[in-house]
Amino acid sequence: MKLSQLGEFGLIDKIRRAAPKSRSVRLGIGDDAAWVDSPAASFLVTADLLLEGVHFNLKWTSLFDLGHKSLAVNLSDIAAMGGVPAYTVVSLGIPAHFRTQQIDEFYRGMNRLARASRVSLVGGDTSAAKSLVVSVALLGHAPHRPITRGGARIGDDIYVTGTLGDAALALQLLKSDSPSLRHPAATFLLKRHHRPVARCRAGFLLARRRLAAAMIDLSDGLLQDLGHVCNASGIGAVLREENLPLSRAYHMLAGKAGNRWALSGGEDYELLFCARRGQRAAIQAVARQAGVPITRIGSCVAKERGVTVLDPSGKTVRVSARGHDHFGGLVLGRLK
Amino acid sequence: MKLSQLGEFGLIDKIRRAAPKSRSVRLGIGDDAAWVDSPAASFLVTADLLLEGVHFNLKWTSLFDLGHKSLAVNLSDIAAMGGVPAYTVVSLGIPAHFRTQQIDEFYRGMNRLARASRVSLVGGDTSAAKSLVVSVALLGHAPHRPITRGGARIGDDIYVTGTLGDAALALQLLKSDSPSLRHPAATFLLKRHHRPVARCRAGFLLARRRLAAAMIDLSDGLLQDLGHVCNASGIGAVLREENLPLSRAYHMLAGKAGNRWALSGGEDYELLFCARRGQRAAIQAVARQAGVPITRIGSCVAKERGVTVLDPSGKTVRVSARGHDHFGGLVLGRLK
Repeated sequence: MKLSQLGEFGLIDKIRRAAPKSRSVRLGIGDDAAWVDSPAASFLVTADLLLEGVHFNLKWTSLFDLGHKSLAVNLSDIAAMGGVPAYTVVSLGIPAHFRTQQIDEFYRGMNRLARASRVSLVGGDTSAAKSLVVSVALLGHAPHRPITRGGARIGDDIYVTGTLGDAALALQLLKSDSPSLRHPAATFLLKRHHRPVARCRAGFLLARRRLAAAMIDLSDGLLQDLGHVCNASGIGAVLREENLPLSRAYHMLAGKAGNRWALSGGEDYELLFCARRGQRAAIQAVARQAGVPITRIGSCVAKERGVTVLDPSGKTVRVSARGHDHFGGLVLGRLK
Repeated sequence: MKLSQLGEFGLIDKIRRAAPKSRSVRLGIGDDAAWVDSPAASFLVTADLLLEGVHFNLKWTSLFDLGHKSLAVNLSDIAAMGGVPAYTVVSLGIPAHFRTQQIDEFYRGMNRLARASRVSLVGGDTSAAKSLVVSVALLGHAPHRPITRGGARIGDDIYVTGTLGDAALALQLLKSDSPSLRHPAATFLLKRHHRPVARCRAGFLLARRRLAAAMIDLSDGLLQDLGHVCNASGIGAVLREENLPLSRAYHMLAGKAGNRWALSGGEDYELLFCARRGQRAAIQAVARQAGVPITRIGSCVAKERGVTVLDPSGKTVRVSARGHDHFGGLVLGRLK
């Protein structure tokens, strides 16, 4: 069905009926604003903008996956504070040629992840647009003191959850229409690109047990995001190349890129955090409880030493790209 | 300066430094998520998407005004619930040809209104884009029970704040490049279009004193928005044409359009509410305290009678357009 047949209010009604809604939502979609419970004395807020042709390409991204990912990237921000995601508002700019089924697919993908994450969809906006615009804001509770980027100290260990570079390598294969896309290992990489999994459980446990001194989610590439933690904490960092957690699929298909995407590729949506050295056993307990590997990749050093990567022989690795850091080539630049 | 010279993080730092921030912001722009106080047990959330070429035209809208308006339309939603606006996250998609000064102007306009409304700018996102994208989410406190669209009863009076149709008439003059734009009265209309004033104080007082039984803000045109209140409350409405509050400027420049824009024009950002008949004096006291005229324009009737407008002789007025209600011609269609 064409959107013009369904009409604006038909669309909104459809979205409303399918929206995940917990009991803490006093008033969801359907009024001037949503009205929701705030069990703690404070809450967390984040927002991400995803634009067709800038952040995603509908040639190789399904609407279902886009719905999933639009929420996942915001969940990842709340995870990085150690919070509990709770409510989302979603604004869509929709091109005239879109069909109702495509919007349904978007919300099916988003709502499935929202339900699994106990997030309620409580409002937003819809509009005609020239190309697809997705703008998501997410509110979370902070039952424990949020973990900022600013608490790391010299001597702390540096950890990441999961594996690095998978999503960026997948995007590279898609962009170059690589023959490797037909390799069985590509399936894993593509899933990492299209359906990132925010590490909410790990983030929450690290905050509850006060294990992470500083934390950030990896959206713009390991080195760049680690740089933010270093700046905020007033430290430097040394990483060990051989400790970077790479997936089997990444090893199989990275080829000449080596660990370039693991160091500088965006969209990992893993957590990077720093912790005191005495917490190593406790952190591995979190990894088991959260069901995600947590790997120690380096340590915090004096600010003057900057961020360096050492190869197994102890030599500094030259890194060509440091992620998205210019407005000219900007992909994601959150106000954070 | 070009944005590419300033760089993404230079831009974010600039925005952060200028951002209004109250003491209730524990952590603003600069981390994965903002962390803010929630003094009450619940809060209100709303979001609006404004797209270049759909919602605004940079030929006749300054960036300063756009910044103002992007926040104002969200303030108006919180006002319509009787809430107190508190925190905003703002995502911008910025065309490559934009200069730093233009983004500065946008935030100058937004921040001035934010300060006047005691709203803190706590986060958001920036991205490259093909045309300007503005996505704003606003959180508000609800110190008193929020007023929904669903509480009106047969026999209630219907009121609006301010005057109607000014913004829509201004847009019409701009679109047709009318010679009336040089008329002194056009200044007032253009201001109503470019710098809408959300009726936060009136909305708050109506909630505090439990005077409004149902309330909505007028964004899509009086008849359409009144229709939403009627649907939600299960009532109909009769309006008196001669009671519609029209500005002197509107009277002077509406010409053949008569009260068409007052009935069906969008973007008034006035409040429409229903109240029991015994509250007339109390409502005029609110008008005085809030410093805005509040006009009784009709009354609530049985659902079967629908929404009708009567002329001074008691005849039903035929209304040609009922606001933006098709996706084909959609301007604003919030999930509400």
